[in-house]
Amino acid sequence: MKPITPRPTTFLEVNDLVPRSEVRVILASETFQHTGSFKFRAAYQVARNAPHGHIIAASSGNFGQALALACRIFGKQCTIVMPSTSAQVKVDAVRAYGAEVDLIDVRALSRDERVAQLSSQYPDAYIGSAFDDPWVIAGNATLGEEILEKCSEIETIVAPVGGGGLTSGLVMAVREDNLQVRVVGAEPETANDASRSFKAGHLLSNEVEPQTLADGARTKSLGKRNWEILRGPNGLSEILEVSEDAIRDAVRMLFLKANLKVEPTGALAVAAVMSHPERFMTGGLVCCVVSGGNVDPGVYTDILMGN
Amino acid sequence: MKPITPRPTTFLEVNDLVPRSEVRVILASETFQHTGSFKFRAAYQVARNAPHGHIIAASSGNFGQALALACRIFGKQCTIVMPSTSAQVKVDAVRAYGAEVDLIDVRALSRDERVAQLSSQYPDAYIGSAFDDPWVIAGNATLGEEILEKCSEIETIVAPVGGGGLTSGLVMAVREDNLQVRVVGAEPETANDASRSFKAGHLLSNEVEPQTLADGARTKSLGKRNWEILRGPNGLSEILEVSEDAIRDAVRMLFLKANLKVEPTGALAVAAVMSHPERFMTGGLVCCVVSGGNVDPGVYTDILMGN
Repeated sequence: MKPITPRPTTFLEVNDLVPRSEVRVILASETFQHTGSFKFRAAYQVARNAPHGHIIAASSGNFGQALALACRIFGKQCTIVMPSTSAQVKVDAVRAYGAEVDLIDVRALSRDERVAQLSSQYPDAYIGSAFDDPWVIAGNATLGEEILEKCSEIETIVAPVGGGGLTSGLVMAVREDNLQVRVVGAEPETANDASRSFKAGHLLSNEVEPQTLADGARTKSLGKRNWEILRGPNGLSEILEVSEDAIRDAVRMLFLKANLKVEPTGALAVAAVMSHPERFMTGGLVCCVVSGGNVDPGVYTDILMGN
Repeated sequence: MKPITPRPTTFLEVNDLVPRSEVRVILASETFQHTGSFKFRAAYQVARNAPHGHIIAASSGNFGQALALACRIFGKQCTIVMPSTSAQVKVDAVRAYGAEVDLIDVRALSRDERVAQLSSQYPDAYIGSAFDDPWVIAGNATLGEEILEKCSEIETIVAPVGGGGLTSGLVMAVREDNLQVRVVGAEPETANDASRSFKAGHLLSNEVEPQTLADGARTKSLGKRNWEILRGPNGLSEILEVSEDAIRDAVRMLFLKANLKVEPTGALAVAAVMSHPERFMTGGLVCCVVSGGNVDPGVYTDILMGN
């Protein structure tokens, strides 16, 4: 058995993804990454580099699964804090990779509070963040490197924005190569704290966890490290907001025109290009990052059937 | 714009596709091929090599779309005979590539009869077959070459059997390289003419078009050229039959474990491995060809939800 390492991204060309426009799109799909999302790139770096034998993180989604697998690879103990309302299939997936699942009632105790408790209980453990962590950003930068190596025609990279871990990794990769490639964020209208922060010039937070179909973007705010990178020189070029309907349309378009199964968060970049084609009509190639593919069959079929 | 040529296949590793077995599977997915199936490889060779300015073929499915695009690339006239009961979306897809659609009432006139009529009407046209054609077989052999180049660990290639165009191309590629790689066919139980032919030692046909969810395997019999190749020395190793339930299970497994959207015919090879794991427990790597991804959202959601 060869050792498990992050898989290279899957580039897919799609014709006519934006009908009646001249926008040329290439997809960088992380749906075939280990554990089904780009998060494994980050989790792998955390588990490899943190000198701790035990890693604790809060995640109800892709980062939890990714960190669980990464810790198994490096023989480390892993605890994932999840709301007790999490889908059983997600709890089972994290457990299947050998991690301990710590279920909490989020009405009584926030995830951050529970992580702080565990941190006191296990002082030697490393507390992982899904975005505000230098190894996470370095792991995500590897995706940027692959995109920049793929094709010199790529003029813009579009990627979803939640905590800013992915986009800050992409920005770091572009800076490293000193290239003139734009990085554009795609954020749900209903969770637009990053967009509002850019307009305000300082970091803003949502009061509560925002409601959006794109569950990977339900963060209260960008991470501090991410904000510094994204607003810095050669940082994020702009953030485009997309409606919930546009997210659904993009999931359906990717099914119909690209034969690609994506989760709602994974469709954000394509939704941004479909919603704002005028921002991409420069003739250059636009690389949309499809960040992940893990979606419940019920949610997916509702989207496909327009429910 | 660079010229359109067949895209290389997309290799995807999938862990635990066959639970509780030692079978190691790699997918060769043609779902991201132009027009969404391997058929474009064949159609491209036909349109490129036939010295005729007009190509006629009967197809209600993937071959029609593929031939329409291929003819457009080479500036040739294309007529696709389709049943008048075909889904409008399929008719529209063929027309969108610039082909003429000839709709027939199959209760009054068979597709073969209509093709014969058109052949008399257009004596200078080339009559294309989706499988029983040397250029089709040569086009499909290119997929075999890519698989053989991918990895020397591949011991077995499993692919769907309808008219035998794909498997005969794979067999030709293995023969060309003089390798000891097994090619195994996967055929629906309810459309098992190829399996019965192999057992009988001579070519058998279904009386009527068989009913199976795998619409790409609804052929009445193998083509004559395909039969000769498949039963020859170093031909098809065996044919495994799969139930309709196994096809549905494989579509679901590919959704859940590989994030891959496939059409029922495209899931046949995986269904064969899941149904007959004992045939693949030699330790070698098994390459399952996922032949295509074009499936109506309604059919797909019914399969996902177990209806």
